[in-house]
Amino acid sequence: MPTYKAPARDARFIVNEVLKLEQYANLPGFENATADMAETVIEELGKFTAEVIAPLNASGDRQGCTRHPDGSVTTPDGFREAYRQFCESGWGTLSAPAEFGGQGLPHVLGFVLEEFLCSANQAFAMYPGLTNGAIAAIQAKASPELQALYLPRMISGEWSGTMNLTEPQCGTDLGLIRTRAVPNGDGTYAITGTKIFISAGEHDLTDNIVHLVLAKLPDAPDSTKGISLFIVPKFIPDAAGVPGERNAVSCGAIEHKMGIHANSTCVLNYDGATGWLVGEENKGLAAMFIMMNAARLGVGIQGLSQAEVAYQNAVAYAAERRQGRALTGPAEPEEKADPLFVHPDVRRMLMDAKAFTEGMRTLALWGGLQVELAEKAASESERQAADDLIGLLTPVIKGYGTDKGFEVAVNMQQIWGGHGYIVENGMEQFVRDARIAMIYEGANGVQAMDLVGRKLAANMGRAVQAFFALVDEECAAAKSEPQLAELAGRLEKANGELKAATMWFMQNAMTNPDNAGAGAHHYMHIMGIVALGQMWLRMGAVAVAARNGGASDAAFYDAKLVTARYFAERFLPDAGALRRKIEAGSSSMMELPIEAFATA
Amino acid sequence: MPTYKAPARDARFIVNEVLKLEQYANLPGFENATADMAETVIEELGKFTAEVIAPLNASGDRQGCTRHPDGSVTTPDGFREAYRQFCESGWGTLSAPAEFGGQGLPHVLGFVLEEFLCSANQAFAMYPGLTNGAIAAIQAKASPELQALYLPRMISGEWSGTMNLTEPQCGTDLGLIRTRAVPNGDGTYAITGTKIFISAGEHDLTDNIVHLVLAKLPDAPDSTKGISLFIVPKFIPDAAGVPGERNAVSCGAIEHKMGIHANSTCVLNYDGATGWLVGEENKGLAAMFIMMNAARLGVGIQGLSQAEVAYQNAVAYAAERRQGRALTGPAEPEEKADPLFVHPDVRRMLMDAKAFTEGMRTLALWGGLQVELAEKAASESERQAADDLIGLLTPVIKGYGTDKGFEVAVNMQQIWGGHGYIVENGMEQFVRDARIAMIYEGANGVQAMDLVGRKLAANMGRAVQAFFALVDEECAAAKSEPQLAELAGRLEKANGELKAATMWFMQNAMTNPDNAGAGAHHYMHIMGIVALGQMWLRMGAVAVAARNGGASDAAFYDAKLVTARYFAERFLPDAGALRRKIEAGSSSMMELPIEAFATA
Repeated sequence: MPTYKAPARDARFIVNEVLKLEQYANLPGFENATADMAETVIEELGKFTAEVIAPLNASGDRQGCTRHPDGSVTTPDGFREAYRQFCESGWGTLSAPAEFGGQGLPHVLGFVLEEFLCSANQAFAMYPGLTNGAIAAIQAKASPELQALYLPRMISGEWSGTMNLTEPQCGTDLGLIRTRAVPNGDGTYAITGTKIFISAGEHDLTDNIVHLVLAKLPDAPDSTKGISLFIVPKFIPDAAGVPGERNAVSCGAIEHKMGIHANSTCVLNYDGATGWLVGEENKGLAAMFIMMNAARLGVGIQGLSQAEVAYQNAVAYAAERRQGRALTGPAEPEEKADPLFVHPDVRRMLMDAKAFTEGMRTLALWGGLQVELAEKAASESERQAADDLIGLLTPVIKGYGTDKGFEVAVNMQQIWGGHGYIVENGMEQFVRDARIAMIYEGANGVQAMDLVGRKLAANMGRAVQAFFALVDEECAAAKSEPQLAELAGRLEKANGELKAATMWFMQNAMTNPDNAGAGAHHYMHIMGIVALGQMWLRMGAVAVAARNGGASDAAFYDAKLVTARYFAERFLPDAGALRRKIEAGSSSMMELPIEAFATA
Repeated sequence: MPTYKAPARDARFIVNEVLKLEQYANLPGFENATADMAETVIEELGKFTAEVIAPLNASGDRQGCTRHPDGSVTTPDGFREAYRQFCESGWGTLSAPAEFGGQGLPHVLGFVLEEFLCSANQAFAMYPGLTNGAIAAIQAKASPELQALYLPRMISGEWSGTMNLTEPQCGTDLGLIRTRAVPNGDGTYAITGTKIFISAGEHDLTDNIVHLVLAKLPDAPDSTKGISLFIVPKFIPDAAGVPGERNAVSCGAIEHKMGIHANSTCVLNYDGATGWLVGEENKGLAAMFIMMNAARLGVGIQGLSQAEVAYQNAVAYAAERRQGRALTGPAEPEEKADPLFVHPDVRRMLMDAKAFTEGMRTLALWGGLQVELAEKAASESERQAADDLIGLLTPVIKGYGTDKGFEVAVNMQQIWGGHGYIVENGMEQFVRDARIAMIYEGANGVQAMDLVGRKLAANMGRAVQAFFALVDEECAAAKSEPQLAELAGRLEKANGELKAATMWFMQNAMTNPDNAGAGAHHYMHIMGIVALGQMWLRMGAVAVAARNGGASDAAFYDAKLVTARYFAERFLPDAGALRRKIEAGSSSMMELPIEAFATA
């Protein structure tokens, strides 16, 4: 049976030592976020997720969700009780706004929770995760009346939320939506259509489920400009918030999936269900993107979370399983064989996982901070800088984070050899669960196009230029420190490859936009590597200072410096190869007709 | 429901135009292998695998194998009938030796069969696949009496075979084997112990199952030098080959696995079972390696096969599913959206799959030819050259072929978006099935060490030097052809990276063997890329000649040239990055103690 222990020490290091959360104490919501408080929250989150949520991961996968003939869905054994404890402990309210009953703590701590919860049990984490996305959209765009009615109950966890975008004919291309919304004349709308792949679409955890549904008004433009967003509650609440009449939305089926079995992925049928408009008519996409952006960061964290839990279990196996001898001679001659840990190829996969998870954790938590600084930083220029950076890096955190997170989960399964392929050992579940994160909330190819087609060009490239300059500046500053000079030098070079690739797009995508599309995936990966490198430089600087300052936990900081070096040596070289692939352009990629791909 | 069509045109191209099988008509077994005959065999194999075997793939995955309380195992519905047809059609005898009832055709055609059969249904293919491995060992090492008794019935498919290496405490490290063989005094041995992960270990397809079992004699050296190989039949045959008494071997359990559900992976308990020695006492490992080498090439083909069938289904979806618009403007303005096929990132994944599968098919079939030339070529120097090359490239075909095959299967699932995660669409099964090939028959890290630790150094590097020279020679020859010059130039450069990496090992692995271990995985991947590049150069040369000669199927040859260019632009750049990773050595990889990996 796999196990999970929250990486509390590392999260504390990032929050308190790298991001230095305390320095923002002057900003609203950060007043109480002292280092001690962050430490306490992180420790308690770690205990709760490891002790209450993780034990339900394998059993939830095995049992899955059950749809009953009346359309109701029950979650796996133990989920209701665990969810009750989750709400009672107040974890769902952690970084929710205080005016609606949240604790109003920094998002960074909310992101720590997302990672721990997802590592413990991704399918479980999705129930509150989807609710958070719905909360964000309602908070940003719904009327004060709708906010007052829905937000407190969603934040407390009494009610949950969903996102309803996909239809059978319509995934990425939301212009193809067919679900209709017809005004009832009383301010409400009658919603009719079929939505598919609705995570947490129907279940037994909450008293009500608040569906956020994209639909088209009669005579709306037949494109993404004609989409509106509606709240469609499963039970229609009265003014006091008591769920009443059952709305005309029902679960037609739950999907059989490769993984995340314990989350109910539903076909939802809307049959004239009563809905309330969120924001303005035909402006639903803007509201939906608020959910999507929050959700994309959350999905990036899922990539990290599955890599992390798989890594922990691979470390345990590598320490315990004995097979073969160290190449340099028996490490433990008194035993019949050495632990797997002595083999360089096993170590390669472990170090790769360590360099990714620790770097990615820093990038994700840094991202959580930028989300908030974009709103709350003291000056307009600071707010804009944070908003630029998180806008630029959201597709990278999602796309690179989940691509690499999946790769790491696969490698950790590999360390288990044949035993990794056996269901009962749990490693294969991490791989199956990690796989979905590359697909949902915008498949990673969509993330890459968002990055290259939208984020690079926004404001005349302001965000990406700022990113380049920041990385170069940090590299220049680090070069004088002998323990960081190699990383700084290699990172500067990788940043140069990224700049060159950007320049190549500028010169070649105007005449042929396929040249941007052809290199988008590679570009997203270079930027992921560079962003992680930047985080390793920051961690490295903290580690050097801690060692020089005589910090007590020397082994922890020494490991950071070794891992930073590993990152420099094994991650950064890919940047050059990726640039060369980008510069190959779209010609050989796009030349063949579809017939050339047919099997004969 | 996924579909499968055998890539007969491409196999024919490789066998008849690239490898030119007819040129070997002077060698034993090749006499009848005319181009027409090869074409007929390939077409018929294609029909049989697509029509009879492929339809059982998804249902077999869903149903799996069933172990009954008496220890017997039934395969999924339809498997018995399909296996009967497989035997009756004589497919199992294709390249088996004529003296024992085989058709004695070239191995190359046997390899075509392996690919088609595995694409159609990997779990099914493993039943005859394991039998083939057992046949190879018996043919090479068993006494004439055992050969006469077992080989004809195994070749006809009446009896099947298994390989019994793994035990709970012993995977890669066969020195740890505990299964005991005690002489009975009548020339037979009593075998006692537990074997795990035995593919096709117990089932209802054949009248008998011939287990090849590694065990230790009393007082044998306690290392790999003390291992012997035994035949242990499920039913003990009389001299006429009629299965009689049930032997003391039983299936204790079947494993629950991530994939290949339709193959019964068994725990086999030997309780004083009667066994017959194969070869000499304590020399079992040599015999087992004959099976392993054949099996490793077969597993490399599995990587290809899952990539191929996943690719076919991704092509179909990309042509049919409409979502979004081409970046260069609507491709089909009369429709509401363009097919996925117009999107560069979709095309990237399809071209990547096309470049891999067609290159890998060529490499695998080339490998099948070398196996036979190593035995049968007219001169000793030709035999040695073939033996050197296939010895060198066997771990590459297995390790690179399955790593990249899995990656391609994952990408093909990605093209299906959310629908790729749904069980009923079948894409996720290809991923789950492909995953095992990276693990069994020596995990890919073991392949990498076989390559770097054993194959490079053998005969003072004779094989690898010959490989380098051959690639350089072919590059030099191709540079004068404008349509191949770019590929030739880039391949020469990649070959240079491989040479530099080899030199680096020579200079740095003697003082510290971990430097070889640390780079082994990367080295295997460079060599995979270079070997595929060599095959693309050969295919390209054939395509140029065909076009110049006015061949009728112009589109086919043109597609080869475009794909060769894609390969040059998108696969070969990785060689440089991989070399740089190798040259980083083992220092940062091996420096941390196990405690540094523990979660705190």
